[in-house]
Amino acid sequence: MKSLSLSDDVRLSLIAVAHRLADVARAETLTHFRSPVLSIESKGASGFDPVTQADRAAELAMRAVLAEMRQDDAIFGEEFGRTAGTSGLTWVLDPIDGTRAYMSGTPTWGVLIAVSDASGPILGVIDQPYIGERFIGGLGLAEVAGPMGRSALQCRSARPLAESVLFTTFPEVGTALEGEAFRRVAARSRLTRYGMDCYAYALLAAGQIDLVIEAGLSAYDIQAPIAVIEAAGGIVTNWQGGSAHAGGQVIAAANADVHAEALCLLGG
Amino acid sequence: MKSLSLSDDVRLSLIAVAHRLADVARAETLTHFRSPVLSIESKGASGFDPVTQADRAAELAMRAVLAEMRQDDAIFGEEFGRTAGTSGLTWVLDPIDGTRAYMSGTPTWGVLIAVSDASGPILGVIDQPYIGERFIGGLGLAEVAGPMGRSALQCRSARPLAESVLFTTFPEVGTALEGEAFRRVAARSRLTRYGMDCYAYALLAAGQIDLVIEAGLSAYDIQAPIAVIEAAGGIVTNWQGGSAHAGGQVIAAANADVHAEALCLLGG
Repeated sequence: MKSLSLSDDVRLSLIAVAHRLADVARAETLTHFRSPVLSIESKGASGFDPVTQADRAAELAMRAVLAEMRQDDAIFGEEFGRTAGTSGLTWVLDPIDGTRAYMSGTPTWGVLIAVSDASGPILGVIDQPYIGERFIGGLGLAEVAGPMGRSALQCRSARPLAESVLFTTFPEVGTALEGEAFRRVAARSRLTRYGMDCYAYALLAAGQIDLVIEAGLSAYDIQAPIAVIEAAGGIVTNWQGGSAHAGGQVIAAANADVHAEALCLLGG
Repeated sequence: MKSLSLSDDVRLSLIAVAHRLADVARAETLTHFRSPVLSIESKGASGFDPVTQADRAAELAMRAVLAEMRQDDAIFGEEFGRTAGTSGLTWVLDPIDGTRAYMSGTPTWGVLIAVSDASGPILGVIDQPYIGERFIGGLGLAEVAGPMGRSALQCRSARPLAESVLFTTFPEVGTALEGEAFRRVAARSRLTRYGMDCYAYALLAAGQIDLVIEAGLSAYDIQAPIAVIEAAGGIVTNWQGGSAHAGGQVIAAANADVHAEALCLLGG
């Protein structure tokens, strides 16, 4: 893994900056969360869209930190696109992953932050500001800090698909064909649950569930989860078993056995 | 409302006891939450079922508080059934509402506590121990205390169903016929979300969403949400518009307009 070639100083600096980014995004996203004005039609009614406002304010706050602390790195943000760099590292930012969760008050949206090099994401953060819970993985770290303190992240051990818990955000799961593929896996799983947004990937890294399957993702939706889950011993690929760094159809699994079993069913 | 005939002393005592019950249940339920041993097949594999263990320990802890502080009240608990009383008041307890959420690490389960008299629930608590968030309504109260402090609960104002956000726990929603009825409402809503368990009722009381529709509920699943939502200005009935105190098919709405519009579609 290329990240092993980074010096301890660089490694610790990247981790510190990732925490700083999550801190500033947490403050900005909470400013509008559950505010009475917030509603999915507010954009049309008043011209003021608190979700977009929070999304943009959080990304701008993170970009300001990077401009100060990591001038040579590139940035790829959900709201403001790409900024070039020279270091070979890119910060991949999704200030509010799960805007529909955010708009309905559900604490399952998150701030996603990843650092990628040519090999893919080497460090990831999934932060849930309302709960005050932060999952971080990569560069030697795999831990969660939240209401119950700090603990190590470790994906759960192998069990048959028939005893597994599967998560996805919407029952439809992408196109009609993608939905059919998903339902082949769901039909063989012990329990299928919906509505968790990026929080499902955090639960997988925390050893609570076995599978997350989604479609239609962007790179900034999945790069942070990839780093966190891989650091916890899990596997994230696309539905063909290849790289999921660019998003698209994604399967995240707690271990190789359940990954193989589900991948086979997704293939038809 | 019969509760108005209670003296201030009794009212304040009931509120204090409800908080005490939520406190002891919070401690017991968190003991096993996200423990590595916790898994949906653990009962069969080892004879030890941490969910049932947490469920029972929490109800026993609440019953111990009631035995000390409210000897004359009846109790109806999800785990240990009915205990008779002489005061005309019944404590309705569901120590873990949303056991499948609990088993998968999701912070959308809750401790439900209600006080009912002959007219129905007069005080309710929805507590989410992991987030540290408590929604309480009835006897003059309607408030939430959580990570962002304390604030009043107020259901959102009327908007057309086409602009409304609808929640339910499972896409199937009860029987085939019940599922069809639900999907008639979902098809006309702006957004349908799944997987929130009792937390959806809390979001409704907090003014974040417009509708929760479920089927197959027990009295202990819905009495606390009824008190909290009514205290916040909302409406909870069965699908025929009658009392939902006994559970069954339930619709909770932020206001009379969206309640009427959805009820009409549920009726076919």
